[in-house]
Amino acid sequence: MMDVRIIDQTLLPHAFETVSLLNVEDAEVAIRTMQVRGAPLIGITAAYGLALALAEDASDAAIALADARLRATRPTAVNLGWALDRMKEMITALPEGERAKAAFEEADRMADEDVVLCEAIGTNGLQLIREIETAKTTGPVNILTHCNAGWLATVDWGTALAPIYKAHDAGVPLHIWVDETRPRNQGASLTAWELNVAGIEHSVIVDNAGGHLMQKGQVDMVITGADRVTAAGHVCNKIGTYLKALAAHDTDVPFHVAFPASTVDWDISEPNEVPIEERDEREVSHIIGATEAGVVEARIVPEGSPARNFAFDVTPARLVTGFITEAGLAPASEAGLKQLFPKGNSGHG
Amino acid sequence: MMDVRIIDQTLLPHAFETVSLLNVEDAEVAIRTMQVRGAPLIGITAAYGLALALAEDASDAAIALADARLRATRPTAVNLGWALDRMKEMITALPEGERAKAAFEEADRMADEDVVLCEAIGTNGLQLIREIETAKTTGPVNILTHCNAGWLATVDWGTALAPIYKAHDAGVPLHIWVDETRPRNQGASLTAWELNVAGIEHSVIVDNAGGHLMQKGQVDMVITGADRVTAAGHVCNKIGTYLKALAAHDTDVPFHVAFPASTVDWDISEPNEVPIEERDEREVSHIIGATEAGVVEARIVPEGSPARNFAFDVTPARLVTGFITEAGLAPASEAGLKQLFPKGNSGHG
Repeated sequence: MMDVRIIDQTLLPHAFETVSLLNVEDAEVAIRTMQVRGAPLIGITAAYGLALALAEDASDAAIALADARLRATRPTAVNLGWALDRMKEMITALPEGERAKAAFEEADRMADEDVVLCEAIGTNGLQLIREIETAKTTGPVNILTHCNAGWLATVDWGTALAPIYKAHDAGVPLHIWVDETRPRNQGASLTAWELNVAGIEHSVIVDNAGGHLMQKGQVDMVITGADRVTAAGHVCNKIGTYLKALAAHDTDVPFHVAFPASTVDWDISEPNEVPIEERDEREVSHIIGATEAGVVEARIVPEGSPARNFAFDVTPARLVTGFITEAGLAPASEAGLKQLFPKGNSGHG
Repeated sequence: MMDVRIIDQTLLPHAFETVSLLNVEDAEVAIRTMQVRGAPLIGITAAYGLALALAEDASDAAIALADARLRATRPTAVNLGWALDRMKEMITALPEGERAKAAFEEADRMADEDVVLCEAIGTNGLQLIREIETAKTTGPVNILTHCNAGWLATVDWGTALAPIYKAHDAGVPLHIWVDETRPRNQGASLTAWELNVAGIEHSVIVDNAGGHLMQKGQVDMVITGADRVTAAGHVCNKIGTYLKALAAHDTDVPFHVAFPASTVDWDISEPNEVPIEERDEREVSHIIGATEAGVVEARIVPEGSPARNFAFDVTPARLVTGFITEAGLAPASEAGLKQLFPKGNSGHG
């Protein structure tokens, strides 16, 4: 059997540990508990999860069961369903005896493709950063990002951070405003950690601060990832993205969203059609941090006060300046998406 | 000497402890370290701080020194300067021997007045909540608030929470969305604690969530306090207020700001004239919470990642539906403020 290893992202930035996924249950737990997260990585982990299931039982019934389990882990990221659909379509055409090997090969192919796609997102987004660099007379290009859409969220490069890595490699002076991204702090925990490792200048800020910085001219552009983009160009992403898009619109700061074709949901258009995951209130009422005595989980909401935990919001396309994809740049609209992906998500034009 | 006792708000919600302020240094530390916070309470604590200084030395030189020390503690809340100006004007007209006693009496008067003002804010704001209750066919009135502008932030009642307490007392069914309010979590720590004590239904949410809830029709109105309101009606308040005002404007949710006359700065008009305090990055990089082993301070940002900590932002008057003050309700504009306070902050019309 293949060795499927993941970085346990729930331990970052306090510890870097990898975990082997030995069966479909491990993959299910990894996605649900967010050991892996980020739309592209969720999709690929689900693909490997299905392959692991097939290694034990390659019957149609086993495929259906594994598919249902994996699909139920997280409701919002469309890449999950996309990856499982692609796997099933390929696998079910084969005799049982050939399915497991083919499934691992297909998951590997998806992972390799993801690296290529994300690098292309980086190259395409680099143009936008270059334009700002050229227009600025002084100081680094200040980019604000929300949540983590870096290499941790994909196989490599990332989506929102791919243009930033490309710009850094090209010698563009950068400073990244990192939204901490409550409640799970993927910005403070993961994006800051990635940028630290890469040696890219950055400052962690609370999610409340971005609007003020935009008002003060301290943000040249915003780049975020996406968990699902509707056919009309509305962007579902980590909770709070909408607030930053409103501020960018109000202060004339360009707001770009970076994602691959697999993040587009061609079946829905309107914002209210996107299912918004509500997660355990403990992610709001408690926080994980490092003390001298080790990593602890501490309560930050009074006993007796309930908390609610909505994981995503939808930013209307009208607030988004443009899309950055592997197929190029385009306006945030139905026409823009069709121009980028004339064949839908079955392939690139 | 008078006994000046405060609630140490840095320990809430994990512990309720009061502290005696014995001298001006204690008052200075209490304001700077945010044992007391909230614009009205900062002003009154500074008034008592000046009185404590006079109890030791009532000379003009001592007054000037104490005034300078207290005024430098927090730059943004205008109530601080307002209270010190009022105290000095009264004190310096007296012979040295009478100053200390008169100063304590004036500080007491200010505290008593604050209770009356805040209760009037509550009564005036209650009208707005009643209007929403009448218009709704089902469910409680859902009010979102940011930071803490409850009785902890004043002497009693609060500003933003005063209408909520009045509505609760009047039997209006309520549900309060409590923004946790990073970085210092005054919402999760203080507002949730206050509402818990009062038995008012509420849910703590991360600061990122309010826009999503407004999009989904889950917020009937927003009420916040203010740290400084310019003569043109722009509102400086806890960082992140601007983002909620943008979302309220985008989703047609009424956004009201509650404050007394002493919060108006008649000397400035434009948003960029308000000094924005930048505080220690440790408030962002570390968080205080309760574990089984007691209350701990835990690091949540990776070692090597800098953080920045801007404490306030300015919400343009165009995004504010209206003001709730002790003198009544008015539009958020220069004309609205003049209608409420024709004599400026030297008294009410």
